[in-house]
Amino acid sequence: MPAKPRINKLVVIGVGLIGGSFALALKKARIVKQVVGVGRSRKNLQVALRRGVIDRAETDAARAVADADLVLVGAPVGQMPAIFARIAPALPPHAVVTDAGSTKQDVIAAARQHLGAHFPMFVPAHPIAGTENSGAAAAFAELFRDRNLILVPQTETRAAAVRLVRAAWTACGARIVRLEAAEHDEIFGAVSHLPHVIAFALVNQLAQRRDARRLLGFSGGGLRDTVRIAGSSPEMWRDICIANRDALVPLLDGYISELEAARAALAAGDGASLEAMFRTAQQARARWLVRRD
Amino acid sequence: MPAKPRINKLVVIGVGLIGGSFALALKKARIVKQVVGVGRSRKNLQVALRRGVIDRAETDAARAVADADLVLVGAPVGQMPAIFARIAPALPPHAVVTDAGSTKQDVIAAARQHLGAHFPMFVPAHPIAGTENSGAAAAFAELFRDRNLILVPQTETRAAAVRLVRAAWTACGARIVRLEAAEHDEIFGAVSHLPHVIAFALVNQLAQRRDARRLLGFSGGGLRDTVRIAGSSPEMWRDICIANRDALVPLLDGYISELEAARAALAAGDGASLEAMFRTAQQARARWLVRRD
Repeated sequence: MPAKPRINKLVVIGVGLIGGSFALALKKARIVKQVVGVGRSRKNLQVALRRGVIDRAETDAARAVADADLVLVGAPVGQMPAIFARIAPALPPHAVVTDAGSTKQDVIAAARQHLGAHFPMFVPAHPIAGTENSGAAAAFAELFRDRNLILVPQTETRAAAVRLVRAAWTACGARIVRLEAAEHDEIFGAVSHLPHVIAFALVNQLAQRRDARRLLGFSGGGLRDTVRIAGSSPEMWRDICIANRDALVPLLDGYISELEAARAALAAGDGASLEAMFRTAQQARARWLVRRD
Repeated sequence: MPAKPRINKLVVIGVGLIGGSFALALKKARIVKQVVGVGRSRKNLQVALRRGVIDRAETDAARAVADADLVLVGAPVGQMPAIFARIAPALPPHAVVTDAGSTKQDVIAAARQHLGAHFPMFVPAHPIAGTENSGAAAAFAELFRDRNLILVPQTETRAAAVRLVRAAWTACGARIVRLEAAEHDEIFGAVSHLPHVIAFALVNQLAQRRDARRLLGFSGGGLRDTVRIAGSSPEMWRDICIANRDALVPLLDGYISELEAARAALAAGDGASLEAMFRTAQQARARWLVRRD
């Protein structure tokens, strides 16, 4: 277990579920003195202040980071290039920057381009946690307990910066796992981004029906769980899907082929093929996906 | 609220999650004297006996129904024609027969054909409840509390038979809703059968990868909820999908088109279209699908 870090000033850019929960967890662990929140929505920042997620609200990211020790960029990945460009000239040399983006290759490329000389102090990261709720109102200190935190340090990344970020996330209760950026994007394309597209598409299809209201009134727990993640932020998921489209398009193609095979079996009345598909899935789920946490 | 029925002998053919929970609920409500369970699996019947779900096990359905007051057919819908044919000559004239099949047009056609003169005593029904677990071991008396029970009586169905089935399900805590058979199959094709195919197909796709184990080790709550229903019985869902394929094939086609639109937006880097799809889905879910029960 790394030594407890001491952070005088944490700046959270994007005080949403992830950024807000990170702030709350570090406050609870008593390793951060002051948290400054930066965001586009004044209303959300006020919620964050009222709930004690942040101590001060700031609308200008550059001013906020002027004397920061640690900066967490928790905004949608599509906003990160502009945020990096904005804060780069204002960062003090010792400030460590990290992110919570769901894609890593694009964020790293943006950081390399826009953080410039500060890039070795940037530690790419991705906490594997979340709920379908968004905003500072949804933040809670225990969100990351026993969850994976993926660290994707680059060859340029300073060891001391990695240590600080690792220690901060460890203090949040997360398990640290290292991955290569491309591997990260492929894995989370498959287990997270693809399921989100699938869930959004299903609700979309049903919602477009004229009898949508009546239809959905008859749904049970099955549909409700299947589409829970369709409650997630459309903007955030637009950014993630676009950022990771090189991995996601082939995954989506593979999934469409899978459905077309099911459709063919169905249309042919081929129960044996259908049952074989269902059984493979049922057994794989039992083997790999039935966990409690 | 209908008067409490008195059932001397209930026969449950297929003592699974649904049939077993129906027996437990009626026992708890003290309106059934004796429950006889009929099933293919001796092991499952022994579990049912041990748990007090049934009082007696029987392997021959015809012998079991000889002095029955109410018969619930809780087997997969693909087995129902053979079950109806087997019990028809043995049913006493006063015995009411009902089912818990997830499809109605095919079950009604099978009952009309195989129950013959007893068809007016058959009350087609479908309880909208379930979990991803199967078998008598998963049964519990509260499964149907505040859930919909769809009744699909036909023009021939005797009013007294409908009254008994309605009263029994009301005693289980269910809300009674009447639907036409074709409407039932279209609605549940959309909100239940299609989501099951979607979930099975997703796990299937991921499970076929060489890195499946590692990949799924990184999954979070999103994937887990999305594919929960892929834990359901492959045999049961094969039967449901085949039985309802006339409704399900066009629904699956519509869903594949929906995914192809998402794929096209993604490949074109068209974030605006993608966000619009996600937003429609997010709002529809918030409007219609976020309920606690």
